[in-house]
Amino acid sequence: MSAAPVLSFLPEFADVAEAARRIEGHVHRTPVLTSRSLNADFGAELFFKCENLQRVGAFKARGAANAVLALDPDVAARGVATHSSGNHGAALALAAATRGVPAWVVVPQNAPAVKRAAVVRYGATVVDCAPTLAARESTLETVVAKTGATLVHPYDDALVIAGQGTAALELLEDVPGLDLVIAPVGGGGLISGTALAARACRPEARVYAAEPAAADDAQRSLASGQRVRLDAPKTIADGLRASIGERNFALMQQLLDGVILAEEAAILPAMQTLWERLKLVLEPSAAVPLAALNGGGLDIRDKRVGIILTGGNVDLEALGFRR
Amino acid sequence: MSAAPVLSFLPEFADVAEAARRIEGHVHRTPVLTSRSLNADFGAELFFKCENLQRVGAFKARGAANAVLALDPDVAARGVATHSSGNHGAALALAAATRGVPAWVVVPQNAPAVKRAAVVRYGATVVDCAPTLAARESTLETVVAKTGATLVHPYDDALVIAGQGTAALELLEDVPGLDLVIAPVGGGGLISGTALAARACRPEARVYAAEPAAADDAQRSLASGQRVRLDAPKTIADGLRASIGERNFALMQQLLDGVILAEEAAILPAMQTLWERLKLVLEPSAAVPLAALNGGGLDIRDKRVGIILTGGNVDLEALGFRR
Repeated sequence: MSAAPVLSFLPEFADVAEAARRIEGHVHRTPVLTSRSLNADFGAELFFKCENLQRVGAFKARGAANAVLALDPDVAARGVATHSSGNHGAALALAAATRGVPAWVVVPQNAPAVKRAAVVRYGATVVDCAPTLAARESTLETVVAKTGATLVHPYDDALVIAGQGTAALELLEDVPGLDLVIAPVGGGGLISGTALAARACRPEARVYAAEPAAADDAQRSLASGQRVRLDAPKTIADGLRASIGERNFALMQQLLDGVILAEEAAILPAMQTLWERLKLVLEPSAAVPLAALNGGGLDIRDKRVGIILTGGNVDLEALGFRR
Repeated sequence: MSAAPVLSFLPEFADVAEAARRIEGHVHRTPVLTSRSLNADFGAELFFKCENLQRVGAFKARGAANAVLALDPDVAARGVATHSSGNHGAALALAAATRGVPAWVVVPQNAPAVKRAAVVRYGATVVDCAPTLAARESTLETVVAKTGATLVHPYDDALVIAGQGTAALELLEDVPGLDLVIAPVGGGGLISGTALAARACRPEARVYAAEPAAADDAQRSLASGQRVRLDAPKTIADGLRASIGERNFALMQQLLDGVILAEEAAILPAMQTLWERLKLVLEPSAAVPLAALNGGGLDIRDKRVGIILTGGNVDLEALGFRR
């Protein structure tokens, strides 16, 4: 595929602003929380955008709502389909149910039970596949060919990227004067939308992606100038196992200040810290920015730092929640 | 002690309104969250006032702030003292630190480590005692005699009751048309303040206390017309082990519509449900109203129900949070 047609599908800030208007009333405007003790630990001001309190428990509700609501009625009627380790699947299922159209979700067999259950609860059809990116994509192609449904890619989609960018847009509206904005990167839907919003609304702010060192495809891709794809990387941050998409990579190359890495062993302790200090249930992926900051990857002293907490769909049983 | 002097110390709604003005800026106005899936389960509209997101992680920050800020400067300078299984202790420690005066907190040996640690973190002096009400009270008397500090009782205190009532006041302001307001009852500081606020601001609403069946002193006291005291009741809801106070009982007799009971085995499952649906870290005490509703103690179908989620200071290690 040549560069030109791809770039022509890249979303711009106007698409984020339009997404914000389109999805209003369909998703929550989530609160921004702070912790004096975390601020004291870092000698900085941290502002946490609580997308775990979003519908379906994750920011993915934004992009899915934007993509489904933007469809022409006759196209929407044939339904939507996607592959997802979970949150995007639940989000698309909800968006489709809200619009009264069918949804098919291809789910890898190693996805957390709680995420799979959410897809079913919102009324979508689950299609199982092997836990590799290749298996996800080929299974999804088959589903789309069979049903005529519109493919809503979990991250490599202009409408999805624009929708995810609305979280940062709200954060920037609610917290003036941010010096830094940090969001986790998996496929790159959130971070590329975040970068679009931040560059337009707050050009002074630097924008960083945070990813697990065990799934460092974003870091490697930006360093080499070529998209690196990892097949089934091993990290507890199940929401960040995907490799970055084409549109996402193009936007990240243009807009991002850098990538910070979280050591694998630092992710669950950071998650526990967030649970204790913020009193929020968060999934491991949501703790990756704090884990990376704990590792000293970025000097944030005296800075105002916005961090997007991506979701809260964690399997409490798997974590050993005892009765 | 005769009835007359006690009743003369009973707070009124004006004291709740005054507390709201006094503590503004010192405590958070906490958000109210809802869950469509919980609403569907109950066929009702549930509104959760998130005091786990309050400073020190519990509503207790309100009463302690009100009591400490109301002291004359020369009295405040001698410090404050209390006994507490934890949240009130941390709250008083914070309020004292904010005002720059010393605090002593008598803590029973079986209090959760996380609550004890919070008292220390805010700079108060911890004084250990045996895990009985008698031991708490005698140890506290000794501390007060020695230091000249002002005793700020965790619940049997007009300023504390008025302060705790500000949570319900905010809830009633933010959610119009509530039919029911439910709060847990331990010593009764929260429920008596809640009842004061609800009766004044929304006379149509019924007000219920929820308590563990294993610590049912409120239920028994109201049924018999005499304060029943339980010594060290065995419930996982560590914030609700205290027996109701004198002022609290008097207000509850006047203002409360009833008490609903939570079976002990229902408390942790209700807590897990709240963690999963609301994505909030909550302590067992905060789940007692939902546990009681799950037990069918009250018909809430088609009702608008306000529930105060009391706190989020749970010991994640003790619950088996694994790394």
